[in-house]
Amino acid sequence: MRRVLPSELATERTTYTLRRAAEADLPVIVALLVADQLGATRDSVDNLAPYLRAFRAIDADPAQQLLVAQTADGQVVATMQLTLIPGLARRGAWRMQIEAVRVDAAHRAHGLGAAMMHWAVDDARAKDCALVQLTSDKSRRDAHRFYERLGFIRSHEGYKLAL
Amino acid sequence: MRRVLPSELATERTTYTLRRAAEADLPVIVALLVADQLGATRDSVDNLAPYLRAFRAIDADPAQQLLVAQTADGQVVATMQLTLIPGLARRGAWRMQIEAVRVDAAHRAHGLGAAMMHWAVDDARAKDCALVQLTSDKSRRDAHRFYERLGFIRSHEGYKLAL
Repeated sequence: MRRVLPSELATERTTYTLRRAAEADLPVIVALLVADQLGATRDSVDNLAPYLRAFRAIDADPAQQLLVAQTADGQVVATMQLTLIPGLARRGAWRMQIEAVRVDAAHRAHGLGAAMMHWAVDDARAKDCALVQLTSDKSRRDAHRFYERLGFIRSHEGYKLAL
Repeated sequence: MRRVLPSELATERTTYTLRRAAEADLPVIVALLVADQLGATRDSVDNLAPYLRAFRAIDADPAQQLLVAQTADGQVVATMQLTLIPGLARRGAWRMQIEAVRVDAAHRAHGLGAAMMHWAVDDARAKDCALVQLTSDKSRRDAHRFYERLGFIRSHEGYKLAL
């Protein structure tokens, strides 16, 4: 069953709507990146131009889904990016990669992040992926517990080389 | 400077040619996956159909580069897959993701793998990526030393969820 957007995400407290991000959401998405403990040193809302250029590349690429979750009154409070990657290993398995999962602090701990991850996993299944993968900075202990509760296995080392 | 293919990769022993993989390379690439310690349980040359379907998806996607290295007499002895991923974080940074790096055992330890990685990093730079990233199974200790010698930082935990 292919997942459709917008999609309702029910949590213990309220229901959010998950939908594809639009250009008008950019300031809020960038603010979510800046509010993040690690993103604070890397991102800035002062100049949206580089983000707009990236947004248009993401939006034009059928392998990408940049999603936001909003409240009933239309406030965007969370985001994540899903990337569909074809590969040869594991008998030609498709993978769904999840990046840049961010939930506004005021909307955490009531199941929104988990509901978003469940949606992503269901979408990966619907697209015949054999694997969902993500990496998480070694300092994000709370995130590790969160992903492990969802059944993710910490099987790999994640390497980065900054250019 | 954009990197062109085919490209010569000089090592301490000989020179290899790095080029885009073609459908005719599939049996050899799958054999490289099978020869791998972990791939042995997940991949098989008995039925190439799922690999062919995946190859065509990779080949048709401009974000993907499936590459092979061959000897002067045309024997394919190594492969890697590069994926260009746009993103919003880090001021709209593009990333180059490296997957499925495999070198035939008879051609290891003389710099071919390192030459391939250097090519990938240069290509990422030429494509304005801010980051090169990869994950490596926690059991692959030799691979970890290899990536760390190349300057990669083991900063993240890599999570997988098999579907």
